[in-house]
Amino acid sequence: MTENHPHVVIIGAGFGGLACAQALGGKPVRVTIVDRRNYHLFVPLLYQVATAALSPADIARPIRRILGRYDNIDVVLGTATGIDPAARRVRLAGGRELSYDKLVVATGSDYSYFGHPEWAKLAPGPRTLEDARRIRARLLTAFERAEASRDPAVHDALMTTVIVGGGPTGVEMAGAVAELARHALARDFRAIDPRGAKIILVEAGPRILSSFPEKLSVYAKAALERLGVTVMTQQAVESIDATGVVVAGRRIDAGTVIWGAGIMASPAAGWLGVALDRAGRAPLNPDLSVKGLAEVYALGDVASTPDQNGTPLPALAQVAAQQGHHLGRALVANLKDGRPMLPFKFHNRGNTAIVGRHAAVFDFGWLQLKGRFAWLMWALIHIYLLVGFDNRLRVTLQWLWAYVTYERGARLIMSDFER
Amino acid sequence: MTENHPHVVIIGAGFGGLACAQALGGKPVRVTIVDRRNYHLFVPLLYQVATAALSPADIARPIRRILGRYDNIDVVLGTATGIDPAARRVRLAGGRELSYDKLVVATGSDYSYFGHPEWAKLAPGPRTLEDARRIRARLLTAFERAEASRDPAVHDALMTTVIVGGGPTGVEMAGAVAELARHALARDFRAIDPRGAKIILVEAGPRILSSFPEKLSVYAKAALERLGVTVMTQQAVESIDATGVVVAGRRIDAGTVIWGAGIMASPAAGWLGVALDRAGRAPLNPDLSVKGLAEVYALGDVASTPDQNGTPLPALAQVAAQQGHHLGRALVANLKDGRPMLPFKFHNRGNTAIVGRHAAVFDFGWLQLKGRFAWLMWALIHIYLLVGFDNRLRVTLQWLWAYVTYERGARLIMSDFER
Repeated sequence: MTENHPHVVIIGAGFGGLACAQALGGKPVRVTIVDRRNYHLFVPLLYQVATAALSPADIARPIRRILGRYDNIDVVLGTATGIDPAARRVRLAGGRELSYDKLVVATGSDYSYFGHPEWAKLAPGPRTLEDARRIRARLLTAFERAEASRDPAVHDALMTTVIVGGGPTGVEMAGAVAELARHALARDFRAIDPRGAKIILVEAGPRILSSFPEKLSVYAKAALERLGVTVMTQQAVESIDATGVVVAGRRIDAGTVIWGAGIMASPAAGWLGVALDRAGRAPLNPDLSVKGLAEVYALGDVASTPDQNGTPLPALAQVAAQQGHHLGRALVANLKDGRPMLPFKFHNRGNTAIVGRHAAVFDFGWLQLKGRFAWLMWALIHIYLLVGFDNRLRVTLQWLWAYVTYERGARLIMSDFER
Repeated sequence: MTENHPHVVIIGAGFGGLACAQALGGKPVRVTIVDRRNYHLFVPLLYQVATAALSPADIARPIRRILGRYDNIDVVLGTATGIDPAARRVRLAGGRELSYDKLVVATGSDYSYFGHPEWAKLAPGPRTLEDARRIRARLLTAFERAEASRDPAVHDALMTTVIVGGGPTGVEMAGAVAELARHALARDFRAIDPRGAKIILVEAGPRILSSFPEKLSVYAKAALERLGVTVMTQQAVESIDATGVVVAGRRIDAGTVIWGAGIMASPAAGWLGVALDRAGRAPLNPDLSVKGLAEVYALGDVASTPDQNGTPLPALAQVAAQQGHHLGRALVANLKDGRPMLPFKFHNRGNTAIVGRHAAVFDFGWLQLKGRFAWLMWALIHIYLLVGFDNRLRVTLQWLWAYVTYERGARLIMSDFER
């Protein structure tokens, strides 16, 4: 009877939690996976929802549709509010409790604003679908407001977009906003010319894409500049308000500010009662168990996993997915056959960032690619990684259409957005 | 110079306003079209967004994209707050004013709750994209909450959906909710069986689809019942609360209540300072000018246009579209060549309602169709009427996919929905 099988509870159905569940699917284990949303989100393409190139449904898939085929997996729509490791229980909002034999915490991360939580409302980052729609609304509304004004200074300010953070997210957003302004919106207005929009990418460190080899950073910077993006390095954002930012002492008026800098682990890490690292992540043993706890494991951005050199692995989707897959299989072997939990070993499949419609960078370590070929590979890989054939078909068609027409198919301002 | 051309202001970019603008496009007239949203919405398919079969972007198109090709048309994102017919000015939120030579009021209608405005929050009707997403979230969340409960009585109540109003909207919603429960969600849950969901359509009059010939009403009722919908006629909703409704003295507990009954004209009709009819509509002369005002015209649901027998034309998309087209052309002839404004004559192209995935009814007056062939025609006509090739392609693919797989591709609960 399944009731006798050990019960694995997974909190979070992102890349890590989902991969873990899929590895446990169909095995002699009882699984309950909890997420506060009913869908799994393909976050790497979220910036395209934020810049009106894709719709939410193109990159999100109901969790029940993905895992429904496994009889041993129960999907719960709920929000975890606390963990009791001694009693081996997870508390959900509304009072429900889940008892576990093994717990997998895969709750991910959120943006951190360097001690300025009040910036979150002013400068959203593309982390959830709600964020992406808010950014999209803010961008499109800024152009609409510029059109309604007769003051050229107001035009300039509203058509200025500042993106904070020169990592892959910031770079991709900057390129996408440039394309939105220069192509998709270019002929739609009369009083303003969106092609004159200023897009500024601000990075506090010495170069953008600092996690990539320097050669690729240089290439990406040039590609962004060809798109008309101003790249400011070695300059930090000091303050953000409703009409702009202050960078290195200089004020920039902007209609839209988008965040792509610092992240921190989800609060769930704090419920475990163990010491966390500076980014709030739970430190893991090599087998992905949480240091100091029995029967509790963690995956992805909420955790800090050391690589062979002891350096924490980066907060990337592919790390979470590989961990989830490894952990799922290790748990099966352990619960079914009593085998010990093997250590996790990360295999870097390469990092990518896309810069507009013709350029991307790929870092495979031993091989680096850039340019149009890299961009094509980027597109194919992301389509492959999407979950679900219908999502793949939709995104493929949207991209083909956008490539041919330069249009962006999802330019709707939903009026439930409050500025 | 265009500045010397007469200025036509159109409030509203729905079926009426858009058709009028398109007829004025490229003509020696200056046009400003104002809408509080940046997109035109294909309302007849909104019930499919509400039941998770289509995404918002599939049926909405940015107004600027539709009208951008006409140099003489200015698109303004704004909300009209008042009309001064004596001064020939329209006031917008934020203080901006538009002076007009001719004004076209095409602001449409909204649902009316028979003197119970407090029901609006409890029983949304599919009139805007925000409504549709709210309904979708409520439906999907009701099933999720049922899944989380152990009480069979709670299951039954949450899996019960009541639709108020037996017109085309109510009939289409009822059929779509039945399909959502019986097919798309059927295998997704463990504790509940969505195929046991109760869907109840409540109509106060003697038959559903009362604006159609009786033979088609009978057919539609049978088709709904085959889908497992309970059709209650001659019974009116007496009250609505957070957990259900009271119909003809009897309480029905329901997880979701959807409104498809009474509509009333938008408040803009009241700004004209003329006597309105019982539904708040502005009465028109045969040439679509507002009775008692010079230079002001109205189209669509906000107005009451008498047909040859003096009966007001129904509030249908095709009426608004035909009126808009007629008015645009009449205004051009009048402003350019001084010709008198000809009266409008409605040509009924047929009314349709769809009942689930295999059945529709078509009333052409002299010809009535029902069944699978009618359903196919319904689908083709709606795809044809969609604005924009990419919307047509998207919807075609979504429908083909849904037809083959019984899936519904847009089953996302956006967490910014508050109950």
